[in-house]
Amino acid sequence: MRIRAQHPLLHHITNFVVMNETANATLAVGALPVMAHAKEEVAEMVAAAGALVLNPGTLTPEWVEAMLIAGKRANELGVPIVYDPVGVGATKLRNETGQKFLANLRLAVVRGNSGEVGALAGAGGIVKGVESVEGVRDPVGVAKNLASKYNTVVAITGKRDIISDGTRVMGVDNGHAMLKTITGTGCMATTMIGAFCAVEKDYLVATTAALACYGLAAQHAARRAKAPGSFRAALLDAIYQLTPAQIKAGVKVVRLE
Amino acid sequence: MRIRAQHPLLHHITNFVVMNETANATLAVGALPVMAHAKEEVAEMVAAAGALVLNPGTLTPEWVEAMLIAGKRANELGVPIVYDPVGVGATKLRNETGQKFLANLRLAVVRGNSGEVGALAGAGGIVKGVESVEGVRDPVGVAKNLASKYNTVVAITGKRDIISDGTRVMGVDNGHAMLKTITGTGCMATTMIGAFCAVEKDYLVATTAALACYGLAAQHAARRAKAPGSFRAALLDAIYQLTPAQIKAGVKVVRLE
Amino acid sequence: MRIRAQHPLLHHITNFVVMNETANATLAVGALPVMAHAKEEVAEMVAAAGALVLNPGTLTPEWVEAMLIAGKRANELGVPIVYDPVGVGATKLRNETGQKFLANLRLAVVRGNSGEVGALAGAGGIVKGVESVEGVRDPVGVAKNLASKYNTVVAITGKRDIISDGTRVMGVDNGHAMLKTITGTGCMATTMIGAFCAVEKDYLVATTAALACYGLAAQHAARRAKAPGSFRAALLDAIYQLTPAQIKAGVKVVRLE
Repeated sequence: MRIRAQHPLLHHITNFVVMNETANATLAVGALPVMAHAKEEVAEMVAAAGALVLNPGTLTPEWVEAMLIAGKRANELGVPIVYDPVGVGATKLRNETGQKFLANLRLAVVRGNSGEVGALAGAGGIVKGVESVEGVRDPVGVAKNLASKYNTVVAITGKRDIISDGTRVMGVDNGHAMLKTITGTGCMATTMIGAFCAVEKDYLVATTAALACYGLAAQHAARRAKAPGSFRAALLDAIYQLTPAQIKAGVKVVRLE
Repeated sequence: MRIRAQHPLLHHITNFVVMNETANATLAVGALPVMAHAKEEVAEMVAAAGALVLNPGTLTPEWVEAMLIAGKRANELGVPIVYDPVGVGATKLRNETGQKFLANLRLAVVRGNSGEVGALAGAGGIVKGVESVEGVRDPVGVAKNLASKYNTVVAITGKRDIISDGTRVMGVDNGHAMLKTITGTGCMATTMIGAFCAVEKDYLVATTAALACYGLAAQHAARRAKAPGSFRAALLDAIYQLTPAQIKAGVKVVRLE
Repeated sequence: MRIRAQHPLLHHITNFVVMNETANATLAVGALPVMAHAKEEVAEMVAAAGALVLNPGTLTPEWVEAMLIAGKRANELGVPIVYDPVGVGATKLRNETGQKFLANLRLAVVRGNSGEVGALAGAGGIVKGVESVEGVRDPVGVAKNLASKYNTVVAITGKRDIISDGTRVMGVDNGHAMLKTITGTGCMATTMIGAFCAVEKDYLVATTAALACYGLAAQHAARRAKAPGSFRAALLDAIYQLTPAQIKAGVKVVRLE
């Protein structure tokens, strides 16, 4: 409701595959998207934003440089950064980029699948392309340690989403298998987190709420759509139509630690 | 009807977010899209085009350079240029790009929201990301003056679209609030204008007709779709299915001056 | 079925317009997509792939360079390359890129429309933007000769798809006119071929099967959707839902030589 009242601007520097989907997800949840990646303008653009989403899914060194410029300015201004380590574990360039972000930016939230977060944390996890083919054995421990080490919130999304700020650990059991049938649904989860972080300064709470609402929307969409083309449309519809009553009735959040 | 008979080629140099949507809108209205941005080929590509659409929504200096090369060649050949000043008012890079286009190219049409056109004209208007958060007070005057100064047609789209060539001023009252729930609908309006300018040399008439038909298609789509994912599909359907009889019955155009 | 069992990774270096659609088509057919174009990582990424799809639809010299790096590594590793000569015939840059790929890479399959393949083969064919406005007169001869000369499989898609490895020639009569109403359907055909080549080493058989299944899915989609926005969703749905029984009943493949 706060997102829908305040319409925060989400500055995305994101990948080519999902720019359209994540812009639409931003609008559906009630926020405003802007995609801008020129190093000449990112510092200025992020100054107007409620959150910065960094998603190097189709990265080059030039884009990473722009992300770092925007990220440093976001840190100066107190704009929360949500980082999606797409494909970390798959190539050296992606691994190094992940370490660069952890070392140089103060990240509000890191969200990835089990393989990506495992690779980022140096805790195992196998990634094929951008897909987790083998996750970490102890997601709670990995999330907690990585969050603690970098003073951030870590979210490992999967059948059960695990979210930790290094002390508290939350689990979210919303979501649906249909999310795996279309591209960019992980990136959309990251966008949701960005929208919630723009209006809620306890980023563990924001991330948990974002993933629960998004997962719930996916469940609603899956009731109406049984195949990916229809599901893609139904998912945006469901995010847009989600009501406080549905959220109250449908979210499945547990405190694990 | 002329678009559907002639299938003009629309050469787009546009932003990453809407490339797919605007290509599909081009096809839906009966024209042919090509997206090409390499400075090595744009001058050659534009020579085959019925119109050139310049949309620096995710600009970098390299892309702006390619747009200028294509634009200059379009001017030499008499190919009409439609310019969408996405996010002008939000950053210095976008402002400077807008002034560069006005100074160096002979533009057939400039289409933006009230904030963007206001910022471009130096007449106020506040832009957050790519969204107009405060429009100009006198859209008719701003459109008229900017059109007159640069010998172009200016369209300010919003609840009522205002179109002027510096002398005549038209208003279009088609459109629907659902257009604001998905990304790229402004860019699609610009694409529509491009298609109409490819077959009608009175660019004021072409722009007015394009916006009326597009707005009418949005109204039809909104009858069938109440949420953004469905609306996105319904909008393309409605553009594709629009008939001369529907257009005759549904367009709401007024001559204001 | 083999694709759905093995989930091969398809490494795409493709154009901005269709990245999302082709990623979704990859998932719908049961494979995994990754889009990666940085010359710093393509050689490493392709090593994990079952096939490499090269689609220079929005090319620049930098992207072509990355495609050649990935392609050479794919050749070393025996990963099949499927090349889509988008817009060859329209500009010198596209023509030269096509010749560079033929000269420097061992391609498993080349798939284009009649104009594009004609231009690539130096056998006539007129291309406007990325659209074939005049095809070759003798598609069987052109496909056969080009395949023979470069030891590859050539597919010319159209009302009847022609596929040849230089000796054998197959015809596929599946497909539907609605495919021309949305963008990227040629690129999706190329993606389908990539998925089939990842699991079947006789690339003539793989290409024929891919085009027959894809065309059949389009026919199913066209039964449910009469306009492009709906058709786009229905096409992904139909690819995803295609069953062995439907394929057995619906494919129309003929051996021509």
